[in-house]
Amino acid sequence: MSEEGENAVASDPQWDEERLARAALGAVIDVGSTSLARLVSAEGAASVWSALRSSGSDSSWTRRARLLDLEGLVGAAERLGSRFVVPGDEEWPVQVEVLDETELGGMGGAPAGLWLLGPGRLNELVGGAVAIVGARAATRYGESVAMDLASDLAAARDGGPGRAVISGGAYGIDAAAHRGALSGDGRTIAVLACGLDQLYPRGNAGLLRRIGEQQLLVSESPVGTHPTRAGFLARNRLIAALSAGTIVVEAAARSGAANTARWTAACQRVVMAVPGPVHSGMSVTPHRLIRDQMASLVANAEDVQALLAPISQPVLLGVGGERRPLDQLGGELLVVREALPGRGTASTDEIAVRTGLSVADCLASLNELEDRGLVRADGVGTWLLARPSRSTVR
Amino acid sequence: MSEEGENAVASDPQWDEERLARAALGAVIDVGSTSLARLVSAEGAASVWSALRSSGSDSSWTRRARLLDLEGLVGAAERLGSRFVVPGDEEWPVQVEVLDETELGGMGGAPAGLWLLGPGRLNELVGGAVAIVGARAATRYGESVAMDLASDLAAARDGGPGRAVISGGAYGIDAAAHRGALSGDGRTIAVLACGLDQLYPRGNAGLLRRIGEQQLLVSESPVGTHPTRAGFLARNRLIAALSAGTIVVEAAARSGAANTARWTAACQRVVMAVPGPVHSGMSVTPHRLIRDQMASLVANAEDVQALLAPISQPVLLGVGGERRPLDQLGGELLVVREALPGRGTASTDEIAVRTGLSVADCLASLNELEDRGLVRADGVGTWLLARPSRSTVR
Repeated sequence: MSEEGENAVASDPQWDEERLARAALGAVIDVGSTSLARLVSAEGAASVWSALRSSGSDSSWTRRARLLDLEGLVGAAERLGSRFVVPGDEEWPVQVEVLDETELGGMGGAPAGLWLLGPGRLNELVGGAVAIVGARAATRYGESVAMDLASDLAAARDGGPGRAVISGGAYGIDAAAHRGALSGDGRTIAVLACGLDQLYPRGNAGLLRRIGEQQLLVSESPVGTHPTRAGFLARNRLIAALSAGTIVVEAAARSGAANTARWTAACQRVVMAVPGPVHSGMSVTPHRLIRDQMASLVANAEDVQALLAPISQPVLLGVGGERRPLDQLGGELLVVREALPGRGTASTDEIAVRTGLSVADCLASLNELEDRGLVRADGVGTWLLARPSRSTVR
Repeated sequence: MSEEGENAVASDPQWDEERLARAALGAVIDVGSTSLARLVSAEGAASVWSALRSSGSDSSWTRRARLLDLEGLVGAAERLGSRFVVPGDEEWPVQVEVLDETELGGMGGAPAGLWLLGPGRLNELVGGAVAIVGARAATRYGESVAMDLASDLAAARDGGPGRAVISGGAYGIDAAAHRGALSGDGRTIAVLACGLDQLYPRGNAGLLRRIGEQQLLVSESPVGTHPTRAGFLARNRLIAALSAGTIVVEAAARSGAANTARWTAACQRVVMAVPGPVHSGMSVTPHRLIRDQMASLVANAEDVQALLAPISQPVLLGVGGERRPLDQLGGELLVVREALPGRGTASTDEIAVRTGLSVADCLASLNELEDRGLVRADGVGTWLLARPSRSTVR
């Protein structure tokens, strides 16, 4: 990283070469590029970025690379108060790594890095998070259901926090979901298809500003980026990957929410849909998803809770009455435990796909969790959550 | 059959000993009695009735048998214009024989016979018939959906008749289903839990009278019978068995429609449910059935048609452009063909359960249908409908 324009930020120890290269790649490469993700994973971001900048070829990527004012971009992002997280950072959500194994409509790959704005800690928020998505032109019925679901799911339960509600900050269902979570002092994340300084759509700027101040805004794209169609599709993959499950509240026959549902299924997360009146055009996609068994019907927050693994929270263990809160578990252990369904069992392979971890890492974590009495092997290669007994006598 | 009071009807050649015995048993034995069905099947109705009448024991069945005025009952039924069909009659719906293999809540067994009133021919009407059931206290939404579904499904299609709509004649969804079928000049059957002279509930007497004059009323119980709770449950099993599938339109958490849905599943028929607003108490049972994968979501008549085998109707066969109408098929062939799903395959065992025929009879019929080019074996022990090509060249 020897280009002169990058010397100032490059001298900031937080902005090491790899991080700068990831920010640069995120700025010049089309979002959701499977080939970029593969290259970065194989060769490291710094090497890919260096090759791109010095390439003699004339492609849209190399042209953009030569034109990029990386120092200006990082400076603007820092003035906005945003931060950039990359794999290996504590705040990096390992959940998105499932995207390295997932392709849909020619798109895939984990983002090179994520821009964040707000006091929320991304890695903590996404544990057990639920996405609530749907039509911009939602009905009052849909907005009311989205708001109720978000409020109920985000509300504190059993002394622990509720589920963070993830959505895309758009008009209609998205905004209702964010507002519902906020209304009950719950946690919410808006994943944007634009730079964190853009706050698109304009009519939701107040809501998005509040989320940036009190909660968390997330984007794969740097400041200054305007939303594009490809950007919206790439954003949908992030919403799907960051969540334990996605609820489609209302969506017309052709809709972005159906795309998010497909990403959710591709990421092996739980796809849920809310029924509505059969005459409503806005319930066409939820009904089709349920009819074709691509989504489970959810009519209320209880239905959602039954489909998702319990959110991590302090639980009583059965051994000697000792309290050992689950949130003392390390990142991987927590991720693996959360990948287990609330009801029923999952195979090691399924858990690997859900978590984005290798099968070997999953097995190691599952055995560690078994030692701690938090999961049980059922003897046929699958795993289930161990329900801690409140009694110390088994 | 030598008791003097029965001589008059016994001398009518139509009322042979077996038929009279079945009418008598239907009048004195609790409806839906599995043990009666087994006895009659093993020993014949005349023998069971004779044993019951001459029994010295004092049970409710023997007391009722001694008190029964069989001639009076048959006379009243004939004055009403009703007829009594038993196994072996052309109009007997072999579909109900699945009940001999089906038990639910201590109830089961095919009826000893069925009382019919109206110009409709039961055996013809039940081919491809669809049940539409639900709450008495339905909402306007539910009644409107029931009426639309019934009207669309009962409407003539492709030059053939539509599906007969079967329901229970009750207030709310049932009445809307019957009215919807009638509104489009479709066919409908009301299966009552009371005698055909009772026309319960009173508020639907006009509708039921019209069905009895223009369509078909069906009951397992003789004239004079008042509806009982057990009678309603036994009636639900008949609705389920007579239909290729049952649609639950609206039903509260505890409801008779849920019972009909269970009977439908037990009879291996298709269970369908209509979604609605999640705040509506009347959509609780449909949503639960869909959520728990006990029912398929149907939002319109097209969804229903895709789940049910095509109703029998003239089709073009691919051989030499020859037209050979399906309704030239004999009873068993027709029943077996209708037991095949509209999409996908069914095993011989499944077809046996759906039709109430023995596996051997099903195999014979399937091979005959295969010879006629109407079904295809897929090579792994399952069968599917052969789609006739309009072209004579394959």
